[in-house]
Amino acid sequence: METLAELGEFGLIRRLAGLLDRPPDTVIKGIGDDCAVIAGRPGYCLLWTVDLLFEGRHFTADAPARAIGRKALAVSLSDIAAMGGRPRFALVTAGWPATTDPARLEEIYRGLAALAARFGVAIIGGDTNAADRLVIGTTVIGEVETGRLTLRSGARPGQLVCVSGPLGRGGDHHLRFTPRVREARRLVRRLQPTAMIDISDGPLADFTRIAEQSGVGGCLRLADLPCARGADPRAALVAGEQFELLFTLPRERAADLVPLGMTVIGETGDRAAGIRVLDEHGRPLPAVAGGYDHFGPPGGAVTAASAPESTAPFFRRRKKLYNKD
Amino acid sequence: METLAELGEFGLIRRLAGLLDRPPDTVIKGIGDDCAVIAGRPGYCLLWTVDLLFEGRHFTADAPARAIGRKALAVSLSDIAAMGGRPRFALVTAGWPATTDPARLEEIYRGLAALAARFGVAIIGGDTNAADRLVIGTTVIGEVETGRLTLRSGARPGQLVCVSGPLGRGGDHHLRFTPRVREARRLVRRLQPTAMIDISDGPLADFTRIAEQSGVGGCLRLADLPCARGADPRAALVAGEQFELLFTLPRERAADLVPLGMTVIGETGDRAAGIRVLDEHGRPLPAVAGGYDHFGPPGGAVTAASAPESTAPFFRRRKKLYNKD
Repeated sequence: METLAELGEFGLIRRLAGLLDRPPDTVIKGIGDDCAVIAGRPGYCLLWTVDLLFEGRHFTADAPARAIGRKALAVSLSDIAAMGGRPRFALVTAGWPATTDPARLEEIYRGLAALAARFGVAIIGGDTNAADRLVIGTTVIGEVETGRLTLRSGARPGQLVCVSGPLGRGGDHHLRFTPRVREARRLVRRLQPTAMIDISDGPLADFTRIAEQSGVGGCLRLADLPCARGADPRAALVAGEQFELLFTLPRERAADLVPLGMTVIGETGDRAAGIRVLDEHGRPLPAVAGGYDHFGPPGGAVTAASAPESTAPFFRRRKKLYNKD
Repeated sequence: METLAELGEFGLIRRLAGLLDRPPDTVIKGIGDDCAVIAGRPGYCLLWTVDLLFEGRHFTADAPARAIGRKALAVSLSDIAAMGGRPRFALVTAGWPATTDPARLEEIYRGLAALAARFGVAIIGGDTNAADRLVIGTTVIGEVETGRLTLRSGARPGQLVCVSGPLGRGGDHHLRFTPRVREARRLVRRLQPTAMIDISDGPLADFTRIAEQSGVGGCLRLADLPCARGADPRAALVAGEQFELLFTLPRERAADLVPLGMTVIGETGDRAAGIRVLDEHGRPLPAVAGGYDHFGPPGGAVTAASAPESTAPFFRRRKKLYNKD
């Protein structure tokens, strides 16, 4: 019997997705984007996401309690942002050991409540359980005007690939990041991105998803990555849990990016040309430490077909869990 | 510092609920029912629930994989049923060890997919993670006609307390039960129950929730419990994860219950009279093994104020986790 490691995460996910029925026509977007999308009130789409964070994997046992609660909600708000939407409601589901200090749980909920208040999100229910270690999950409903819904699948060849902010911030950024809801709203109102995703698995992996869903190829330029102070561009290209927005734009919109403080990092191209990373001298990069070497043979362009990252995701995967294992 | 055990589950939950802001007016029902309820398409309410099941707590490590998947969805469908609604969409979130046999995961998803198909539910996304032990969660959206929404809070004194089916079924019923969606729909179309809940924590505990939310008291009669073959009524009264519906009805509807095969097990009364259980001879019961003795002093009626079970639940609690610990 094959193990999960032998089959590969994406091999399994493909298999599992194949077991499910096709969704009905009222589903605007099912499996394969940051949120599921269904019809909402007239003129709006309803956005829906779920995320689960585990102690020892998404946060350490000694992480500040408020930051844990904050992150649990922030990852879901980031998914809503990636569709161009506004988050509205949340349910929280959690499990904790009976020995947990109640003051710590209160701090976790204070972190949740503070971020919810900041983004106008109402926490309206949930579920609690006993568990061996702390687990905290959120499911969030948001909405977006039908004309502003931004999927992963809308990029076309010859468009700009852009990011909303600095890349490669280390330390506890993954605990403290601000979900880019306001930035995403500005983008969909003013610039109409053609495709968008939040950077949970790394700019390269997440661009590969847009490329695959849109049927395009493209290149990213290391020299143009807006790296945080001291960050190595090669590492920033494959680091997960950055939670900036990665999006594509028609070329004629380039000037509109400047007042938003956002950056062009590459271009989309024909699918057949695959996905390439250009080094500081504009030369195609054979491999990047920590991830890019998994994408194809050294020296070659990476095609959607050869890249394990490019499999249509059944579920949104977490970089920290699977890419590095 | 108090531990969770010292503070008590409900003491903590009250504290946590106090940390959250009041929901906006667009929320029809927030914390404190089987589902959160928000405005839906014209004429409908949107119902929303989330549940998380843990290996070793909600199912054993050697439980049949299909049954695990089935149960993960069934508990959420049961919540939708308890509001009188129809389930429509689901997201699945799961964590599993990297050593998990892929064939077992496929079987879990087959169990999910089969139950989803049976109830017309589309599984439209989710999230996967690595975890130490199998965890599986579902969040489900359903809908109910505005006039058929049935909360826990609508019971009035002098009404019937009823259940949808046999109580006290043991064995693997908690893994194999059929969520009472069809029965709930029949009830809200034909009989208009005044309050409803699914029996996740035991008929007595769950009736106490209706009583508390509705501001009533009441009595349950052991002699009238429709026990499964061989089941002890005292045990059936406090056994969790039965997933039948418990609901209240105006007295004049009693005859309408018969063709549905449902049973009257008690009556609501004034809040001041508290909640009482009558034994086979109609005498108030001082205590019931395995739970009822936690509700108040022996021999006395249990008032909503004195019963730890009666605290307005912030989150839906699982009997198997907290009542028996």
